[in-house]
Amino acid sequence: MRKLVSDHRDNGTSPSDLCVMATGGGAYKYYDKITEALGVEVIREDEMESLITGLDFFINEIPNEVFTYSEDQPMEFVAHPPDPPNIYPYLLVNIGSGVSMVKVSGPQKFERIGGTSLGGGTLWGLLSMLTGARSFDDMLRLAEKGDNSTVDLLVGDIYGQAYNKIGLKSTHIASSFGKVYKKKRAAERDAEDGCNGDLKRRAEEEHVDGSSEMQHSPSGFAPEDISRSLLYAVSNNIGQIAYLHAEKHGLERIYFGGSFIGGHAQTMNTLSYAIRFWSKGTKQAYFLRHEGYLGSVGAFLKRQPRNWGRRESFQGIRSTA
Amino acid sequence: MRKLVSDHRDNGTSPSDLCVMATGGGAYKYYDKITEALGVEVIREDEMESLITGLDFFINEIPNEVFTYSEDQPMEFVAHPPDPPNIYPYLLVNIGSGVSMVKVSGPQKFERIGGTSLGGGTLWGLLSMLTGARSFDDMLRLAEKGDNSTVDLLVGDIYGQAYNKIGLKSTHIASSFGKVYKKKRAAERDAEDGCNGDLKRRAEEEHVDGSSEMQHSPSGFAPEDISRSLLYAVSNNIGQIAYLHAEKHGLERIYFGGSFIGGHAQTMNTLSYAIRFWSKGTKQAYFLRHEGYLGSVGAFLKRQPRNWGRRESFQGIRSTA
Repeated sequence: MRKLVSDHRDNGTSPSDLCVMATGGGAYKYYDKITEALGVEVIREDEMESLITGLDFFINEIPNEVFTYSEDQPMEFVAHPPDPPNIYPYLLVNIGSGVSMVKVSGPQKFERIGGTSLGGGTLWGLLSMLTGARSFDDMLRLAEKGDNSTVDLLVGDIYGQAYNKIGLKSTHIASSFGKVYKKKRAAERDAEDGCNGDLKRRAEEEHVDGSSEMQHSPSGFAPEDISRSLLYAVSNNIGQIAYLHAEKHGLERIYFGGSFIGGHAQTMNTLSYAIRFWSKGTKQAYFLRHEGYLGSVGAFLKRQPRNWGRRESFQGIRSTA
Repeated sequence: MRKLVSDHRDNGTSPSDLCVMATGGGAYKYYDKITEALGVEVIREDEMESLITGLDFFINEIPNEVFTYSEDQPMEFVAHPPDPPNIYPYLLVNIGSGVSMVKVSGPQKFERIGGTSLGGGTLWGLLSMLTGARSFDDMLRLAEKGDNSTVDLLVGDIYGQAYNKIGLKSTHIASSFGKVYKKKRAAERDAEDGCNGDLKRRAEEEHVDGSSEMQHSPSGFAPEDISRSLLYAVSNNIGQIAYLHAEKHGLERIYFGGSFIGGHAQTMNTLSYAIRFWSKGTKQAYFLRHEGYLGSVGAFLKRQPRNWGRRESFQGIRSTA
């Protein structure tokens, strides 16, 4: 749940009009608790509506807000006001615990066209079990140092080379975590046979930099490698599904938002790469500086003081409020 | 790698013509070893070509081969010969360690249009780390007994109800493993505070049937629940991506093959459900009794004895061989 306090005093209303605008699942689930604890009016706004309202506002009103990402040009802002000035239709991919994909065809005109349950919650949940990491930042730091090729099965591992006939490079990931089962079974057999060649030792030989406090997960694989593999898997997967939905609905621009991205370079890079790879360069991933605040700003705008903001892009919202 | 021994003796050729037909990545990677160990000629055939040749053969030639799956009607065979008799175009989704999606528009006319690295290898790899299960069968048995709602975040968990406005039921999975991170952090905080309310005890209270030898994974969550959640996540994800590719290329029929399925009811049920859900009932998932042998039979057919088989559906193959 995200909330912003909206104060109508500038608008000639009395102090008792102070209210909290709230949106997201928690605005419904914890409505009674919030109202009781804060002693002010809590106004609940629909999550999707707020998200889109906020996004439209950021795209239209805020300079240096929307950017593209690539390794060469990490943060390239797009022209403002947007060029072409008509921003619709577009696809919003909102990545929180889960992922929602929303087609936006005009102000307040949107439809949830898809989504996937493989989102931030999946990454955080699996990594908290597998690596011992206790925060999202820990997990991302681990991922940065990892080498996914120790756990992922690459095309080169299967064929000993690229599979040119179908256009797959030898470094293409054929199966995420595809090496784990076999390695783990081999190590268990070694251990049963009384050999010393257990997986942990082997993993230690492969990773000798000693820079990590958590050298090994309970699984015997390096937490860094596991983290990078899962970050790739989740991001690539979201990228592919987003591309396919954009293709199905004829949408050129794909905006990514939500807490999963959190300004993290590797995540944005993987998402951008996935969109370029699948669309053969015809589509582009866009990110926002204020990605985590789309819903809260959208809810705030529903009860904004009059004449607030620089342009009239959200007038339509007032009239429906 | 799959192989079948092909003997041309019935065909008037000499015993020295005995050869092994091989396909898949291993046919290239282990070619020298196989040739040396067996002392016979090893003929390598392209994996995709063999897969499609085998599938076409099974669809056209074998009665009671292709079936649909639902909970009410677990194994309903489709008419043979296929109705309509023209089986093209179709989508083959081959699920091994990774997943390949292949558009087949005629005999030997095919194109790999997509795939995902989240396949069987991902399920087996992650579950071998998370649950202690040592075989695929163990993992599937665990999944059958599990309750994914202890680890998955459902729409009802977020909203306390369905999110009707966008058509999501309260039991819809919003985030796979979306409950894990929060529960685990809470348990760790409890433990740090010296309370006895640790996650393991809580999990024990939730799962008291005592039927499993492995009551708890190293993570503190029930292996059964973890297994079911991941089986759902991987199957649903493949189903959605398969549907989207089928939609993009105008393909009505989607065939699933490969070792991941292994005749497992829950897997087929989830894949079928995903195709029905995403296509709003307009597309159908098809399965094959001999799903694990498509490539090997396809490779065998490339060097089949003359006049072998009942119909001429694979004549085209001989002429290109």
